[in-house]
Amino acid sequence: MASYLKPNDQILQTLTDVANRLRIHSIKATCASNSGHPTSCCSAAEIMAVLFFNIMKYKPLDPRNANNDRFVLSKGHAAPILYAAWSEAGYIDKAELLNLRKLDCDLEGHPTPKLKFVDIATGSLGQGLGAACGMAYTGKYFDKSSYRVFCLMGDGESSEGAVWEAMAFASHYKLDNLVAIIDVNRLGQSEAAPLQHNMEVYRERCEAFGWHTCVVDGHSIEKLHEAFWKASQCKDKPSMIVAKTFKGRGISGVENEDNWHGKPMPVNKMDTIVNEIQDCIKTSECICPEPPVEDAPEVSIVNIKMSSPPAYNISDKVATRKAYGQALAKLGLANSRVIALDGDTKNSTFSEIFKKQHPDRYIECFIAEQNMVSVGMGCATRDRNVVFVSTFAAFLSRAYDQIRMGAISQSNINLCGSHCGVSIGEDGPSQMALEDLAMFRAIPTCTVFYPSDAVSTEHAVELAANTKGICFIRTSRPETPVIYSSDEKFEIGVAKVVRSSESDRVTVIGAGVTLHESLKAADELAKAGINIRVIDPFTIKPLDAATIISSAVATGGRIITVEDHYREGGLGEAVSAAVAEEPSIIVKRLAVTQVPRSGKPVELLDMFEISATHIMNAVKAAFAN
Amino acid sequence: MASYLKPNDQILQTLTDVANRLRIHSIKATCASNSGHPTSCCSAAEIMAVLFFNIMKYKPLDPRNANNDRFVLSKGHAAPILYAAWSEAGYIDKAELLNLRKLDCDLEGHPTPKLKFVDIATGSLGQGLGAACGMAYTGKYFDKSSYRVFCLMGDGESSEGAVWEAMAFASHYKLDNLVAIIDVNRLGQSEAAPLQHNMEVYRERCEAFGWHTCVVDGHSIEKLHEAFWKASQCKDKPSMIVAKTFKGRGISGVENEDNWHGKPMPVNKMDTIVNEIQDCIKTSECICPEPPVEDAPEVSIVNIKMSSPPAYNISDKVATRKAYGQALAKLGLANSRVIALDGDTKNSTFSEIFKKQHPDRYIECFIAEQNMVSVGMGCATRDRNVVFVSTFAAFLSRAYDQIRMGAISQSNINLCGSHCGVSIGEDGPSQMALEDLAMFRAIPTCTVFYPSDAVSTEHAVELAANTKGICFIRTSRPETPVIYSSDEKFEIGVAKVVRSSESDRVTVIGAGVTLHESLKAADELAKAGINIRVIDPFTIKPLDAATIISSAVATGGRIITVEDHYREGGLGEAVSAAVAEEPSIIVKRLAVTQVPRSGKPVELLDMFEISATHIMNAVKAAFAN
Repeated sequence: MASYLKPNDQILQTLTDVANRLRIHSIKATCASNSGHPTSCCSAAEIMAVLFFNIMKYKPLDPRNANNDRFVLSKGHAAPILYAAWSEAGYIDKAELLNLRKLDCDLEGHPTPKLKFVDIATGSLGQGLGAACGMAYTGKYFDKSSYRVFCLMGDGESSEGAVWEAMAFASHYKLDNLVAIIDVNRLGQSEAAPLQHNMEVYRERCEAFGWHTCVVDGHSIEKLHEAFWKASQCKDKPSMIVAKTFKGRGISGVENEDNWHGKPMPVNKMDTIVNEIQDCIKTSECICPEPPVEDAPEVSIVNIKMSSPPAYNISDKVATRKAYGQALAKLGLANSRVIALDGDTKNSTFSEIFKKQHPDRYIECFIAEQNMVSVGMGCATRDRNVVFVSTFAAFLSRAYDQIRMGAISQSNINLCGSHCGVSIGEDGPSQMALEDLAMFRAIPTCTVFYPSDAVSTEHAVELAANTKGICFIRTSRPETPVIYSSDEKFEIGVAKVVRSSESDRVTVIGAGVTLHESLKAADELAKAGINIRVIDPFTIKPLDAATIISSAVATGGRIITVEDHYREGGLGEAVSAAVAEEPSIIVKRLAVTQVPRSGKPVELLDMFEISATHIMNAVKAAFAN
Repeated sequence: MASYLKPNDQILQTLTDVANRLRIHSIKATCASNSGHPTSCCSAAEIMAVLFFNIMKYKPLDPRNANNDRFVLSKGHAAPILYAAWSEAGYIDKAELLNLRKLDCDLEGHPTPKLKFVDIATGSLGQGLGAACGMAYTGKYFDKSSYRVFCLMGDGESSEGAVWEAMAFASHYKLDNLVAIIDVNRLGQSEAAPLQHNMEVYRERCEAFGWHTCVVDGHSIEKLHEAFWKASQCKDKPSMIVAKTFKGRGISGVENEDNWHGKPMPVNKMDTIVNEIQDCIKTSECICPEPPVEDAPEVSIVNIKMSSPPAYNISDKVATRKAYGQALAKLGLANSRVIALDGDTKNSTFSEIFKKQHPDRYIECFIAEQNMVSVGMGCATRDRNVVFVSTFAAFLSRAYDQIRMGAISQSNINLCGSHCGVSIGEDGPSQMALEDLAMFRAIPTCTVFYPSDAVSTEHAVELAANTKGICFIRTSRPETPVIYSSDEKFEIGVAKVVRSSESDRVTVIGAGVTLHESLKAADELAKAGINIRVIDPFTIKPLDAATIISSAVATGGRIITVEDHYREGGLGEAVSAAVAEEPSIIVKRLAVTQVPRSGKPVELLDMFEISATHIMNAVKAAFAN
């Protein structure tokens, strides 16, 4: 182990001065915007100064360079000091800082990747560390590169369970290229954080979760520097620096006082406050950060194509969840940066097929869905990986806040949720996803795939890999027949008319198991001389409104939707909304209307009125009117 | 401290025999259903035997008695052994156990409160401990009673962050009436759990989180008994028993082996397996559990009425979030079991008004929304409390899995989400709820209130307190004028027509800030001689379809919806679906269509096209067609 070299007095003074300049920027900017969190910035000033101007290696004018050290501001409300640091580094014009939170300025209230130096949006607390874990995992195991990952957290957010999921993950995978800092400024939004300044409790918890841990005075440049040096020497463990700080540090009458969370300084006191801090500054020297080691491999994740068409035969019985695993394994052959994550459900989602074929590109995230999604998003930053994350669709609800933030983060993560709906059967409602379409449709950047057979599932996987934004693929547990030939083409937002005639009297729209129930109904009805049109939407968002409307018009204006999902926010409402401006089209919705129960899949489809029998009844009722 | 008395050999043998009978029941039941988790039951057999027949005090034929000790099976997939325990206790007929997972039997794949001995549904992992915390908090601080709370967890689920949120909560509030057990059977679903049998790591983590912790052999009746005794003696701390066990314990060739998760024993081997366990059983004695101390107070939480009508004047400017806090404080005067929980946002959601008036009935949950919701659900079990939980609506997305499970749990929890939509302004998209209506509408038991002024907010709070199922109240940040008089009556599912004339040409439906934008638009349009009808739906679910349809019919079949929410799953789709079977009604939806940004509220309403100006344009376009 190398021995520690304390920085000389000049460097210490310069960093102290940088810290105070960061304070001043933060105070001025929040005064200018008349909102924001200057006190949460001031507690972190020394941490930010040491990190950005003494520890981190990066190119200040090329913030998204693959070789740069990464920085995640998990306590996103301290955004002004992040902007101040990039300003001191030369990337942002100082005058621009005063446009904080204005409509035409990307220096928003909380950081988003509209700014090149932000990889992941923060502001919903406790999510930064998981993303940082994904970046560190990528650096250590995929890129095998020198860059390190730093994550600054607040003490209040350490109450979030997602933080402890990430803590366990980081030590389990020995992410020694990851350094986290908790800015323990004691005060939360509405009262003191639960542990206040009990630094030893923080230490015990971090150590118990397997981290090398230093407790330091977070306002001592020297102590911080030494702690970061120790972190750099630590092998096989992530490092945590628990920094004792004071909220509003440096502002007389405000420092360490209650009731200053999220409040700018009074405008009439700003000059006094700024001058007091300015008086502590002795140098005006700028420090250039050290450049990174340039050893991150070039990667390309565009235009990823399967090497061959799907290898299924019409009528083969294949669960779409299994087709997902097979497709993902095949996609992994097409590009070496395709990776898969799962939360101990890989033998149910069938991501285990990918794992078997590409063991080095599979990340087991255990039963911690929030962290799994955050790690996936971290892996996807800077276009380093094509990320597929899978678990039961019901359990993606655990990560809905992370997914919501993923849209703000401009993440390109792909999520596969298996075991949708009552058709899973005996396990019962806790395992059935019946609100997932509502969840994902309400994510503005999300494409929602709901493939109905193995061939379309394979296309969904390939399309997702090449589609920006979040992609969700909904897969089903039961085995269902293949209905598309290998050469069938699929596009996002283009539905398939799978059954039609000149005399169709109703358009029925189903997906997954309910498409197959619809086809059964069509067969039965045809025997009675009643023809119906059956549509497979393929993507629920975007929805192929044109095909739906033209089919409805051709079938007397009658649409019946049938879905293994609750009535709200799913296929039925998507279709209702798509035709809402079309007079003379009516939509009848079959969907699950109450909390279901355990039972056999066929029993449950019938009990909750989405089986072929109920479709037939609805068809007959539709044109009886 | 009392000294420990070891049970005599006869008791030890009887409990050992009970454990083996529980194994046999679990194996037989899962064979009969041909699905389920016998191996996860077998690891917990001794724990369950000691708990149910030696430690817990309860009335076996009155499982929901207020005085009973509570038991939460957080590892819900081990449901068969829970059913077996209640069968051995005499509550369930033994033959009924073989109907496990059948459509007409309430012994479902995972436990739900359809069964009187289940307070909270489990099956989504890591949620039981938070609910147990709510029960224990209620027992210690509200009921001030003798009953204790026991929670059995799996080792796999201890990766869930929600567990560590609950761990921190329980020690912070010194819940010494809470005992949790981790059944460390080493094996997860698809591979070993991350900590395997590293018992000391479990110990360190639990101790660091402030729990009295015993690591024991989980198959030793004697050691378990002693650990539970120690737990009973521990004051001011919750107790954790970390039990080293083996999955499939007692089944030769299966115990401690991979690939047996969630698999029943092969039918042709069942007799051999059962006989081998049966041979260990030496007694057939039944043990009656000790009855509870009868010191839980009687409480009534029905028919809670505000003592006076709302005290607002028309045109007063009051944010609905503030009206929520004021209403809740007032409701607290009407019933002493009204309680409030918040996650360090009480000065933003205004639950602090309740706290100031009723400090003993406020639970600060800090920044841990999953646990907050679980604690709230725990507090609401057995109708002990009327629970109101608040945070920013955006952050309720963090607890969506808990909320989803709340419906299965038949929970009557009330959730208030503040700061909805772009109208919060400068803080930016991470703080804006724009998918919350989609979330809550897709919860089958949920009533969704979206009050538009202070008077209707007060009624929403009162109605929520008296409404079964989950209630969600969406509140807004900006101050908006009071539009209803104090004597206005409100009902769930009944909309208000707030502006109408004989010559209305379009029906505009808004809620919250967009109702006020609609009224502004109506005023401006009226100046130009164009009358519109304006509707306040009050509840988005159930939606008053009759009023909406009759208004639409009266206004040329034209509806415009305008909402501070994404286009999917919110007001616009609810209305589209409500009129989907009505030919000749068309719906035009104004909503937020992309990830928003920081800015002033009025700028953002305009930028995202939900302001009065855009409503006016939409109205003009509607009848131009």
